[in-house]
Amino acid sequence: MSFLQDVVDILLQYVVKSFDRSTKVIDFHYPNELLQEYNWELADQPQTLEEILLNCRTTLKYAIKTGHPRYFNQLSTGLDMVGLAADWLTSAANTNMFTYEIAPVFVLLEYVTLRKMREMVGWPGGCGDGIFSPGGAISNMYAMLIARFKMFPEVKEKGMAAIPRLVAFTSEHSHFSVKKGAAALGIGTDSVILIRCDERGKMIPSDLERRIVEAKQKGFVPFLVSATAGTTVYGAFDPLIAIADICKKYKIWMHVDGAWGGGLLMSRKHKWKLNGVERANSVTWNPHKMMGVPLQCSALLVREEGLMQSCNQMHASYLFQQDKHYDLSYDTGDKALQCGRHVDVFKLWLMWRAKGTTGFEAQIDKCLELAEYLYNKIKNREGYEMVFDGKPQHTNVCFWYIPPSLRGVEDSEERTSRLMKVAPVIKARMMEYGTTMVSYQPLGDKVNFFRMVISNPAATHQDIDFLIDEIERLGQDL
Amino acid sequence: MSFLQDVVDILLQYVVKSFDRSTKVIDFHYPNELLQEYNWELADQPQTLEEILLNCRTTLKYAIKTGHPRYFNQLSTGLDMVGLAADWLTSAANTNMFTYEIAPVFVLLEYVTLRKMREMVGWPGGCGDGIFSPGGAISNMYAMLIARFKMFPEVKEKGMAAIPRLVAFTSEHSHFSVKKGAAALGIGTDSVILIRCDERGKMIPSDLERRIVEAKQKGFVPFLVSATAGTTVYGAFDPLIAIADICKKYKIWMHVDGAWGGGLLMSRKHKWKLNGVERANSVTWNPHKMMGVPLQCSALLVREEGLMQSCNQMHASYLFQQDKHYDLSYDTGDKALQCGRHVDVFKLWLMWRAKGTTGFEAQIDKCLELAEYLYNKIKNREGYEMVFDGKPQHTNVCFWYIPPSLRGVEDSEERTSRLMKVAPVIKARMMEYGTTMVSYQPLGDKVNFFRMVISNPAATHQDIDFLIDEIERLGQDL
Repeated sequence: MSFLQDVVDILLQYVVKSFDRSTKVIDFHYPNELLQEYNWELADQPQTLEEILLNCRTTLKYAIKTGHPRYFNQLSTGLDMVGLAADWLTSAANTNMFTYEIAPVFVLLEYVTLRKMREMVGWPGGCGDGIFSPGGAISNMYAMLIARFKMFPEVKEKGMAAIPRLVAFTSEHSHFSVKKGAAALGIGTDSVILIRCDERGKMIPSDLERRIVEAKQKGFVPFLVSATAGTTVYGAFDPLIAIADICKKYKIWMHVDGAWGGGLLMSRKHKWKLNGVERANSVTWNPHKMMGVPLQCSALLVREEGLMQSCNQMHASYLFQQDKHYDLSYDTGDKALQCGRHVDVFKLWLMWRAKGTTGFEAQIDKCLELAEYLYNKIKNREGYEMVFDGKPQHTNVCFWYIPPSLRGVEDSEERTSRLMKVAPVIKARMMEYGTTMVSYQPLGDKVNFFRMVISNPAATHQDIDFLIDEIERLGQDL
Repeated sequence: MSFLQDVVDILLQYVVKSFDRSTKVIDFHYPNELLQEYNWELADQPQTLEEILLNCRTTLKYAIKTGHPRYFNQLSTGLDMVGLAADWLTSAANTNMFTYEIAPVFVLLEYVTLRKMREMVGWPGGCGDGIFSPGGAISNMYAMLIARFKMFPEVKEKGMAAIPRLVAFTSEHSHFSVKKGAAALGIGTDSVILIRCDERGKMIPSDLERRIVEAKQKGFVPFLVSATAGTTVYGAFDPLIAIADICKKYKIWMHVDGAWGGGLLMSRKHKWKLNGVERANSVTWNPHKMMGVPLQCSALLVREEGLMQSCNQMHASYLFQQDKHYDLSYDTGDKALQCGRHVDVFKLWLMWRAKGTTGFEAQIDKCLELAEYLYNKIKNREGYEMVFDGKPQHTNVCFWYIPPSLRGVEDSEERTSRLMKVAPVIKARMMEYGTTMVSYQPLGDKVNFFRMVISNPAATHQDIDFLIDEIERLGQDL
């Protein structure tokens, strides 16, 4: 016990430092340096508890402070104290979600929480089904699996050989997990048709309809449209109402990948961006992103009850005995793809109790306000070009920093190839100084640009100002 | 911070109680009771931190003490202090495994640990590849996915429609995840051929070869044999050498599902049971089972390097930028099915440092010795019938308890139907008293029997004695 308390003391120090702006976000070392700096190898003989504590300190020394108010690198940032406490409790309880028998409270909390999330999606009385899965990619894969099963239940026994050639549709800005899922499920990535987006990254409904008609003419069977609520790079929201109309007309399963944007359902000010989500057949929503729940916490919500169970159940009698002494509807394991399943619900549930819906709303509204502050600050500032016009719909703000040497230079191949190198160099310098982190990427014909996202409620206007100053400091000589 | 310390105090009390034999394993309530006993609902308004602490206490009050030395219900039991500390550190670090950029230490530790595990499997120099995945079912699904891709790489783009009809083979005692994976991957459960087992639950190699030949004659393409090292119910080890010979002869991917039995590789005394595993193409091994690592920790190991990457990569440029300033071979995310991936390695790594390989060996040997103690104690005892003869190969001990009223009664339909009800009633009583928990299930034509497993190194001979006494106390009137 004193060992556990010693580790806790180390962790509490780390947590305090994570929020301290005078602490580095990262103490960066190259992989080979880090491998050599310390002996990480596994041996036959045990180490002492003193050495174990040293291992913990060393691990944390080189870790990224993902809770740091100037860490903007991913969609999941921040460190919520109640969420952390809940995750610690989950570890101590050390159980598995498959039956009520071994996880009575957690199974009930999953039931309560998923129903509440479905209510917020807008399904009457929170009806339907769902599961917490290990991340948005798996949640999206579930949706695809269930949509296929709904249309052709024989696929479960007979495989893809017994059913017509399927096609799915998603936008060119959608998350790569849609294609990954299609590859895994034996559908094939060629059968995922990418629909064009407007300049803001939103799917163009007329292009969707055109491609559906085209696919049908070729004899393919459209079975799924995966719309995105909050794309990864632009933070765009696909027009869900128009997409729902098309799905209805052609009788296609409508999935909404709200892994990133789902959190906006908590905000009375912003939830209109997901109007139409209530018409979806399934929704992915990752509370570990915009709601700041510790990793990992991703929900798949399904409107039709019972479908997940019939799609995935294998009736393993050693696990799901049918002659147990309690109501077996709480044994949810057989609707999962996993057998053992980590308890991901408790941290969300406890944070929700601690904040209330209004608390989540306030922190989400704050992050969106910060994004707008950043946008207003740089949209006309010298040395910046926005990747797309108009104020951000989510907290994504995409921009190029144009160093002085490139300002006023006419568009040319040379300019493009120099601009391409700006963001990677600034990013590398940020990491070496350890002062802040923000992501960059190319997209389509657009060369490397910064994608700023804000999901940490600890960030302030001053942190946004700092980011801008830092980009300019590190990039002025390029 | 004082809130976090308050939660830690509650958790430390819980941990101490978990190991106290005078504490109940479970304070059982039926689902509806538990739902009504307390208000679990999510509201608009926040609760106070006092109330949050109460939520934590209430959750733990009704939780199963999975670390209790008399909790024998699952393959994953026990609560290791270093493992728990490591999981707490993981929560505080709150990051994702996809890139070195955001998880430098954890990515390196995964590299070190998987290589060590491959060494123990027997692949020269620990060569090959691997990943920690969310549970054994997903690890097995990965193996199937990769085996299919290895034989028909075009399946990734073209789907199952472009390739011949595949068949996989596994024993009738294997884990249901093999069928679940086949359903998900579009192969279909009918294409999983179940091979007969001997009376100890081991796959019969001659039956495997016969069914392979038969499938080929029908024009199907055998692509995977999933052998089991440690079956769920009997704890049987399939004869891996004979199976490897057959896989070699017919050029079929050999997977070993060692989710449960893989831990025995740590024991010089018991690892012979996995002889032949070094000839496998892939191996599932769940340290969260026999090695007592907190949930969840499952590894898939693959002998051929690079295959996972080519099978799963989607080249998402926003995540896996190719112009970063460090060695990109450490960005492992694109070989996963998941996008975000929880850090599951640290608890295993830290426990390994604290125990050394010899420490894991000692705890595994102890659990197997306890199983043999139980077997010796009941094999000739009045009121017990063993489900199969011979001493246990793993810690699974399968038996019927025959209450006095059924002793000496001739085998008949009535006896069978009464015997079927014995284990469920005793189990229900165990849970109501809260004194111990052990699993039961039917299997094939065998009615409900107890399956005892021991994976908690805190268990002792006295706990085994207690279990026997408790079964007799609770079952004598049946």
